[in-house]
Formats: sequence, C-alpha cells, structure tokens
Amino acid sequence: MTRILSNEDIAQFLSIDDCIADLEQSYRDLHAGTAVTRQRSDTLVPTTEDRIYGLKTMDGIAPRLGMSAVRINSDIVSWPLIAGTRRRVKVPAAPNQRYTGLVLVFSTETGEPLAIMPDGVIQRMRVGATSALGARYMARENASTVAVLGSGWQAGAQVMAICAVRQITHVRCYSPNAQRRAQFVAEMQAVVNAECIDCASPEAAVADADIVLCATNAIEPVFLAQWMCPGQHLGSIKMSELAPSVLRDADRVAVHLGHSKPVLVKARDLHVPDHSAGFGWEMVDAFDFKSCPTLPELVMGEVQGRTADTDVTCFVNDLGLGLQFAVVAARCVKIAEAAGIGHQLPTDWFTEDVHP
Amino acid sequence: MTRILSNEDIAQFLSIDDCIADLEQSYRDLHAGTAVTRQRSDTLVPTTEDRIYGLKTMDGIAPRLGMSAVRINSDIVSWPLIAGTRRRVKVPAAPNQRYTGLVLVFSTETGEPLAIMPDGVIQRMRVGATSALGARYMARENASTVAVLGSGWQAGAQVMAICAVRQITHVRCYSPNAQRRAQFVAEMQAVVNAECIDCASPEAAVADADIVLCATNAIEPVFLAQWMCPGQHLGSIKMSELAPSVLRDADRVAVHLGHSKPVLVKARDLHVPDHSAGFGWEMVDAFDFKSCPTLPELVMGEVQGRTADTDVTCFVNDLGLGLQFAVVAARCVKIAEAAGIGHQLPTDWFTEDVHP
Repeated sequence: MTRILSNEDIAQFLSIDDCIADLEQSYRDLHAGTAVTRQRSDTLVPTTEDRIYGLKTMDGIAPRLGMSAVRINSDIVSWPLIAGTRRRVKVPAAPNQRYTGLVLVFSTETGEPLAIMPDGVIQRMRVGATSALGARYMARENASTVAVLGSGWQAGAQVMAICAVRQITHVRCYSPNAQRRAQFVAEMQAVVNAECIDCASPEAAVADADIVLCATNAIEPVFLAQWMCPGQHLGSIKMSELAPSVLRDADRVAVHLGHSKPVLVKARDLHVPDHSAGFGWEMVDAFDFKSCPTLPELVMGEVQGRTADTDVTCFVNDLGLGLQFAVVAARCVKIAEAAGIGHQLPTDWFTEDVHP
Repeated sequence: MTRILSNEDIAQFLSIDDCIADLEQSYRDLHAGTAVTRQRSDTLVPTTEDRIYGLKTMDGIAPRLGMSAVRINSDIVSWPLIAGTRRRVKVPAAPNQRYTGLVLVFSTETGEPLAIMPDGVIQRMRVGATSALGARYMARENASTVAVLGSGWQAGAQVMAICAVRQITHVRCYSPNAQRRAQFVAEMQAVVNAECIDCASPEAAVADADIVLCATNAIEPVFLAQWMCPGQHLGSIKMSELAPSVLRDADRVAVHLGHSKPVLVKARDLHVPDHSAGFGWEMVDAFDFKSCPTLPELVMGEVQGRTADTDVTCFVNDLGLGLQFAVVAARCVKIAEAAGIGHQLPTDWFTEDVHP
C-alpha cells in the first residue's frame, strides 16, 4: 500500500530531537558520498498580474534508510508591499485557500512509492533542525540567551530546535507586529522550558544575546552590524537576513551545503518587478559563500566552528536539500507504518507493468 | 478533486495524432520562451550486487495549457548479458513485478495537483511522436518504406507515429528474437494500414528503406555505415543506436533539444561495471551533438531538414523533456475530467494550510 499522510499526522509524531539526529547522520553520509542530493531547481513562468508560477523540485537518496524522496512545490508567488516592506509571499490559491508542497517517498530496494505527504511540517522541522546543528557546532557551549527575529511558522521551529542543542534559559522575541509577537511569545512559552520574552524592538531582543536567530520573510537585512557583540552566534534561514557587513566582520561564516542558488529555468518573458527579491540570491554575489565551510564539514570535525569564546560566528542556512526530506520523511514513513497512520491506497495505482 | 489515472485509462483515449500536434505546439512555445523545461536529472546510488537505484526527474511548464508536470522515475537498473549483448534493463521490483514511473500534473493558476498518473503510455507516445516530428521535418515527403529495428514497447510507438506523418506503405521489422519479432509484426499489422513485413536480418529490413527507425535497448550501434543509402532518413531513440560513422557521414543530423546528458548526481561508491553503458552518453563525447540543429529550430523553419532528395538525414531523439509530459498529460487530464475517468481523491490530501 502507498500511504498518504497529512501535516497533522506528522506533527503528532515527529520530534525536533529526531529531526536533528536524522539530519546530523545524513551529513555524515553525504560527506562519505553514500547519500546523495540533487540541487534544488526552480522552473518559473509569469502568470496573472505581478504573480509568478514556480515549480520547485529537489531529490535525495538515503541508502542507509532504504528510501529516497522528491520534494515538489507548486507555488503561486507574489511580492506585496506589507507595512512599507516588500515581502515575498506564496498565495494559497489551491482549493480551500491552500498551498501545494509535497514529498514523495520511494523505496530504494523496490522503487515503489511508499508514501505521499505534504511538505509543511517536515519543511519547518528540517529548517529548524539545520539551524540548530549550525549552532551545535558554532555557538558557545554555555550559550543560554537567544534572540529570535521573526514570529512566523519558521521562527517557532527555530526556537524549539535551538532549545534542543543548548541549555537555553531566555528566548527574546521580536517581530514588527506587536499582536502577532505577543501571540508567538505565548505559543513558544507553552513548548519550551526557557523564559520567553516579548521585545518591542530588535535592539532590545539582540542586546548581549548569545545566539541570534533570524527567521523572517523580509527582503532587507534584519540583523545589522552595529548589533554584533563578541561571542555571539548568528543564524539565518535566508541569505539576505544578515547584513553583508555582518558576514564580512564575523570571525567564521559557515553555510549549509553551499547550494546558494537553485538551478533556475525561466520563461523568456519573466519580468515581474523584483522577481528574485526575497530569495536573497543577490547576496550570493555580494559575499563569497563559496569559500565558507559547510555543515557536513563542521559535523565531521574537518573545520572548527569557533576558535575562541569571543569569536562571532554565523551560520547561513542556505538552500534546503532533497536529502533532508528523504531522511525526515523516511522516519515519518516508518513511524506511520508501525502505528497504522494515514490513508492507504493500492501501490498499483502508482506503479505500472510496462517498462517506462 | 485530484485524479488518479492508469495506463489503461490513458491508452484508451490518447491518440498519436494528438500527441504529435501537442508536441509540435510545445516546441513553438519553447522556442518563443513561453514554455519552459528543466533538464532531466539522474540521482544514482548502488544497491545490491550489480544493480543501481536511480531517481530520475524532469519538470516542465506549459502556460498555454495552464498546467505543469513533474515526471519521476524510481528505477532499479541492472545490466544483464542477454544473447551475448549487454543490455540496460529496469527491474520490475515493485509489488506485483511492476515499475515505478509517475507524472504529477499541477495547475499553474492555483498550484494544486490536478492528477497523478503512471508515465508508461505517455512516455511511449511522446517518444514516438518526437521521432515522428523529426521525420516530418527531415524525411523525404514521398517516403513510403520504413524499417524498424527493435520489437519492444517503444518500437510499436515508432511505427504508429511514423505512419501519422508520412504515407507509409511498407513497414519492415527486424529484431534478433524471431518469435518476438513475428508477434510484433502481427501486433503492428493490426494497428497500421501499411504492410508489415518480418525480416530475418537487419540488412533485409534496411535495404533501400526510405526511413530507418531504431528503437532498441542495445548498447552497441544497431545501424551501421555500410547500410546507409542516398535519401534515407534515420531515426534513433538513444544516442548509441547509430554508429558514429553514420552520424559523421550524414548530410544533416538534428537532435531533440540538445539535452544530450542528464544532470548526474552520483554516490561516490557508484562503480557498477558499465554503469553508464546503455544510455549512449559515451556518444556525447564521440560526436559534436552541440552543433546540431534542434527540433524546435526545425519546427520553426529556422533550419531546413534536408536540402536535397539524396541527402541522408538523422534525427537523434536525445533526452526527453519535462515539457513533453506537461503537454501530453495536460491533454489526458482534460479528457479524463470531461469523461469522468479515473479515481478521484480529495485535493486537500495533497495540499496544505501552512506556508511551505
């Protein structure tokens, strides 16, 4: 049978600790050359008005787990001006105002499709877990105070994940919308043991924080050079969140895998204003990410995260990997199989008797 | 609702004429830069013994039709020695001895997944239709005799498709296995108006044939230079079928889109003997395919297929395109929707309410 899982199914059984452990192992396998991942591709065409349609795919194979995955996003993207700031926003244009992101999981022994699931919960958890691994290898061992900039879906995962790799006592939260921010602080207080604090300005949040995590969809930098202080670890989930001068002044900058930019395939008439804005790709040219060590190198101990307690370290969580979806979705499939969770469809619906 | 179609569903309503028309339009759109396609990627790891596991994906968007597609193959591949010849064979390792090849179709207006279907029938029809378009623009107008080398699933589509673009009166068939060949001739006789002839040798099949179509899974060339004769059009569905000297001696060689090789992502320990054999990629280095005109250029009239009745022309149907799957699958979706064909599942199963 081929299993159909929902985000609700996955949220009920997938833990951030497991995600962190799964990803850490996957970087060892990637480094050893046994696991493989195909750089994300974005295939883009204009649609109505200022929107574009994007088909984003990435593939990965985790032979250790006997599974592979294809992650697909079928996005309607717009760039509205929100509170004076241009933001990149996916439009929930599917029926019932929904988004389309899928992970298909296959067996590497039989080829068969084992499961199909939405990507949302896994995406959030894997981004959080990746940033946490960056912090595990780069932040000071005794880091206890975290500032988080952003109050969205991704910011929450950042908070949960950082609390899994360091003994965090205080989480200071800032985002521009006070109401949303208060709600976020209350939500976070319910899931982590640290004290969660509502900060009315970014300065209040970041002042003397041991760790600063950016998790926004802003196009401009959200962490500025004048806020840096010795010993800090800075994390970002997109390349544009840390000001270029922050990256230049830091003692050590590491990246995820150095897949800074997706492979872009664009229609000739794609000329939406700022169509690339919000991805942070313009940063790829402004800073030499190619020379930075990668997370697998940090995990393998080939590169030291920091050499002194006073170092300022940055982890730029650049492009996601198909392999991340393969390992985390593989865990989901195994748990769901054991517990009988999800809809089951005949595998014959998704296979064929002719040589393709 | 999201529709699940089977190969049987698709075979009952998809015609080769429609495929040819759909593809021809897609090359115009591709040339105009409105339709887009992402070069195939193959992500490969070793599995047991002499097998490899391959995850092959390609994406395409057909804005004219309001649909996009991702085509996925999850293959167990082996290279057995069959009748003295090394062949690349996909192993039907999925339950009930089946293969795994899928096409997912999305709406470019809403992003939603409209349908999921196996790739087999579409794959066969699009390969046949592509070769037929090559022949439409390169073969002599009065070509009437076709030799087909091969008697498999792909060979059948080649025969049907060539009969759709030229007034074919005779189809001469050769493949090494006499029993299989006789069966193929009988099958073909039932679907085309031409006389189908069983030939005991390749020489008997190709002698003075106006068109020769190779559709095999052999690793070595199946059409040799000494068989060439003036005015012939030669078609192949992989780069290794025509001997390099044939390509060099031909007056005109055209390719599909010049995507000669997929983007390869391989495990470090992938060292299966002859692992690349059978793809014909070694030919990419032996002949300058990059300088060849492409099918879109032929369709747009930018390049003439032949300049004289005595020219020998070759069409090498190199890598398939995600766009081909998008346009042919889009037709399938529209027909199936109108006729209420296939299983219907709630689209909510394949979408989500969180920003991915």
